[in-house]
Amino acid sequence: MTYSAPLQDMRFVLHNLCDLDAISQLSGFQDISPDMVDAILEEAAKYAAQELSVLNRVGDLEGLGFDQGNVTTPKGWREAYDMLVEMGWNSPTASPEHGGMGLPFVVNACIQEMFQGANMAFQLCPMLTQGAIEALEGYASDALKETYLPKLVSGEWAGTMNLTEPQAGSDLAAIRSKAVPEADHYRISGQKIFITYGEHDLTENIVHLVLARLPDAPAGVKGISLFVVPKVMPDGTKNDVRCVSIEHKLGIHASPTCTLSFGEQDGAIGYLVGEANRGLEYMFAMMNNARLSVGLQGIGVAEHACQDAAAYALDRKQGQAANVEDSAPIIHHPDVRRMLASMKSRTEAARILAYRAAAALDMAHRADDTETRARAQRRVDLLIPVVKGWSTELAIDVASLGVQVHGGMGYVEETGAAQHLRDARITTIYEGTTGIQALDLVGRKIIRDGGVAARELVAELRETRERLAKAHNGQAELQPLLPMIEEAANLIETATGWLLDNPKKSPAAAMNVLDLFGLCLGGWAQADAALAALDQISLGQNTGFTETKLRLAAFYAQQVFPEARARMTSIKGGSDSVYALSPQDLAPAM
Amino acid sequence: MTYSAPLQDMRFVLHNLCDLDAISQLSGFQDISPDMVDAILEEAAKYAAQELSVLNRVGDLEGLGFDQGNVTTPKGWREAYDMLVEMGWNSPTASPEHGGMGLPFVVNACIQEMFQGANMAFQLCPMLTQGAIEALEGYASDALKETYLPKLVSGEWAGTMNLTEPQAGSDLAAIRSKAVPEADHYRISGQKIFITYGEHDLTENIVHLVLARLPDAPAGVKGISLFVVPKVMPDGTKNDVRCVSIEHKLGIHASPTCTLSFGEQDGAIGYLVGEANRGLEYMFAMMNNARLSVGLQGIGVAEHACQDAAAYALDRKQGQAANVEDSAPIIHHPDVRRMLASMKSRTEAARILAYRAAAALDMAHRADDTETRARAQRRVDLLIPVVKGWSTELAIDVASLGVQVHGGMGYVEETGAAQHLRDARITTIYEGTTGIQALDLVGRKIIRDGGVAARELVAELRETRERLAKAHNGQAELQPLLPMIEEAANLIETATGWLLDNPKKSPAAAMNVLDLFGLCLGGWAQADAALAALDQISLGQNTGFTETKLRLAAFYAQQVFPEARARMTSIKGGSDSVYALSPQDLAPAM
Repeated sequence: MTYSAPLQDMRFVLHNLCDLDAISQLSGFQDISPDMVDAILEEAAKYAAQELSVLNRVGDLEGLGFDQGNVTTPKGWREAYDMLVEMGWNSPTASPEHGGMGLPFVVNACIQEMFQGANMAFQLCPMLTQGAIEALEGYASDALKETYLPKLVSGEWAGTMNLTEPQAGSDLAAIRSKAVPEADHYRISGQKIFITYGEHDLTENIVHLVLARLPDAPAGVKGISLFVVPKVMPDGTKNDVRCVSIEHKLGIHASPTCTLSFGEQDGAIGYLVGEANRGLEYMFAMMNNARLSVGLQGIGVAEHACQDAAAYALDRKQGQAANVEDSAPIIHHPDVRRMLASMKSRTEAARILAYRAAAALDMAHRADDTETRARAQRRVDLLIPVVKGWSTELAIDVASLGVQVHGGMGYVEETGAAQHLRDARITTIYEGTTGIQALDLVGRKIIRDGGVAARELVAELRETRERLAKAHNGQAELQPLLPMIEEAANLIETATGWLLDNPKKSPAAAMNVLDLFGLCLGGWAQADAALAALDQISLGQNTGFTETKLRLAAFYAQQVFPEARARMTSIKGGSDSVYALSPQDLAPAM
Repeated sequence: MTYSAPLQDMRFVLHNLCDLDAISQLSGFQDISPDMVDAILEEAAKYAAQELSVLNRVGDLEGLGFDQGNVTTPKGWREAYDMLVEMGWNSPTASPEHGGMGLPFVVNACIQEMFQGANMAFQLCPMLTQGAIEALEGYASDALKETYLPKLVSGEWAGTMNLTEPQAGSDLAAIRSKAVPEADHYRISGQKIFITYGEHDLTENIVHLVLARLPDAPAGVKGISLFVVPKVMPDGTKNDVRCVSIEHKLGIHASPTCTLSFGEQDGAIGYLVGEANRGLEYMFAMMNNARLSVGLQGIGVAEHACQDAAAYALDRKQGQAANVEDSAPIIHHPDVRRMLASMKSRTEAARILAYRAAAALDMAHRADDTETRARAQRRVDLLIPVVKGWSTELAIDVASLGVQVHGGMGYVEETGAAQHLRDARITTIYEGTTGIQALDLVGRKIIRDGGVAARELVAELRETRERLAKAHNGQAELQPLLPMIEEAANLIETATGWLLDNPKKSPAAAMNVLDLFGLCLGGWAQADAALAALDQISLGQNTGFTETKLRLAAFYAQQVFPEARARMTSIKGGSDSVYALSPQDLAPAM
């Protein structure tokens, strides 16, 4: 089914829940008016629906060609990419200095969600290029910036991130690729695996960002440097990098996942980005943005799955339902309605959280005073692993429910429901698995900062609680929200306290903590959405849209949020039972 | 990865948790000794590992050929099927009268779990044939039995179930296929879709069981009759049935899902099974067995996913772990261990429940006195929707966790982890979606019987509680089991009471009830397993195996069971929020 960007929802979140007004007053954003944002989003929505979405199934079915190191993208891919470049959609946040649109992260979040939702396999290419741009903008020399940024920003060239090696997946300390100095450059050699868009035919050049070790580098994470290694040198000669193979994957069939071999001849020519041995640090600095992007992928695919499932449920007739004559569209069956509401209420909660993280990123980069920036950065740091981990886990579940709503037709590839599940399944793995996000959340973002950022959030949840208590004037939908937000604040506070008291048990509890944060912050998002809807209703803007927000928030409180309490039980009681299990307990029985 | 049947686990459940002794004393089973059962299971395990498992990926990759109505199965399929027939594995429970082995359902449960776990796409063929055999054994005339049963039982012929039509999926009342009487037979016409193994090259004949309407049949479910429609007539002429197409599916690529067209020429010749207009009743009578089989599929695939993930986690080294020098196998990382324990503890709980349902089926068929039979039948009726619904939903989750344990390699098809997810995904859909199971559970199995069967279960959970309270002598692993089993009994009792008080709200609460029953009965299964392990330990049989059972039960109590309480909250509080949502609230936003 064609993806249709949920523009009304996006605007509702931007304006009412992310304070776009405040962001458009930040330094560098003064030219960005609400009207302009609206116009941009409408154009992006058209491109998503008319160009990207129609290619989504084509890409899944046709997949990629691979011949002697060359990768061929599916029919129509090149034309869609050329249009992306032409319309300037490649890197909306890049600085105007290098030809970018200089849009706020929070506005870009909408654009990325649309493009990912319409065609995730396609949008991975610009997503990776955006990462490369950010690395170069942040850490490269002026000379490198001049050479590479303009064409990366426009999209004439694409970028990649080369981290993983066969022995170095989640553990980048194990990287072995080498960089040997030679004149003004380095000779890079080594094998990189799982390189998204490592080779393709969309652009004339591909700029690889590669992690490798200098000959004298210290062992472990402190001896890794970052290099620019172009596929084609500025003088037009081919660099010593070769695509050895591409993977046969569960989903994102049209996104090439490449094994790249660097330096099989004389060594690939590369240029050091920033200082030696600080490569991992640079990567981590970019990680927030990359992880936010993957969270938005999850939300985009989940939204697409919601749309397809709802459309099917409105169309497909089966059985009798109360108040419906003859055979009823299955959306009238309570359990179908429950599935759709579970899909939609969680997707919308995740969207609000992700956009808020993006808005905090804007604040952290551009707010006037240091304290505001520092506080915003703490918020970003805390929210990112939750946005990445929770949005992607729920995306898989939402896509799977989408299959279920379709019944037998969902298992048949032709409806596209199964593709969402297959595509979404990667999002909990790359850019750090959910387990890695959970360790980041409990270790770096809660325990290491002494719970400061978590408690700032708790205080905001309690502000929402106060506003709810005042707003509450008998609406049935608001009844379950007050106990939810109270409990959500308490659960986050309790979990934070438990982690600070039990740091050694935290790794086994981490996933439950991440899920608890997602469920509680999703509840906060839904409560704020209901309050914003209520404000509009009190201004006489009582539309179906605002009423729906109230009902979805109530559904979330009663059908989704209760799991948070179960997570707390498992956190407190369950770490010991994890540590008690030995590898032998879990080995395959014979 | 090659599937290896968990024989030790299976024997543990059969002997300690299903009272195989009592079953082998039932009428007709006197020849079945524990030694014989052991020998059968070992032979079946060899066939599963050496024949079926090695073809699992072949079938997934190669898929099916389709040309002018003929379906070609993958390389090696035919040989494996011939061996199945030769060894007598096609229909282990069929009566010796027609050449079957006459094994108890509970022993067959082990065999089916093995074969499904080794190669689900293959085993669907015998599974469907078993359904056809059961229908004929139960309701066909002696003449039909004589003609069709011997070759179906041996597997020389295969059987199918033709229920679904384009407009009649979950709602069989909408069936339109026609049957017009003619001499001693009927002329059948109509189109059936989603017919598993509707056409293939494994057998010389395929015996279709078809639901259709007589010309004078009443409308709705009371006008549907059941017919035998062979692909090839006993005299060797071809019947008027044609495979129009096969589906391109997410998984089970080697299992043909066919659209069958009956009666394009003169009408396909069919024979009435039993009486006219009672077809649906016959189908429902067989449904318990068919749904148990699909539950066992889920458990089989989940077990296979557990084995593959544990093997990978023992092999793959990444990062540092406490008490491990150098790079540690990832099984040492707490969150990996948590994932594996979640997979294994739930799979084992589901196995115990499913085998207990099978044992109750044996009791219901063969116990001496009416009261025991009636009580066993109530137990079967109550457990089946839980076994079908809960085992298959958890199979998808377990398979998805299996992908996650493999990290990036899980997303690459070559490891096979993704195939488990794709294969498992159908199990919550066919033979009645999980939503249908949930409605069956709350409507027919709880509300209609006034909660009698549910309360009988609660009483047994409380017996387990008493035994636990006595056995409890300080073991750390037993600590969390006592509060779990107490709460499990209370939750089932409360949910049952709520349903009886709120029958009209039950459809919206049904899925939460099903999940609550699964989680609570899974806890009961784990508690009984721990008690059985403790018995063995007290007899001096203190092995790694028994210790593992205690630790897995503790894990289940602390990390899995807490969700049951969340389901109760949603049951009590959540139905209103489902009913409050209108189709418009859930329609795609524009």
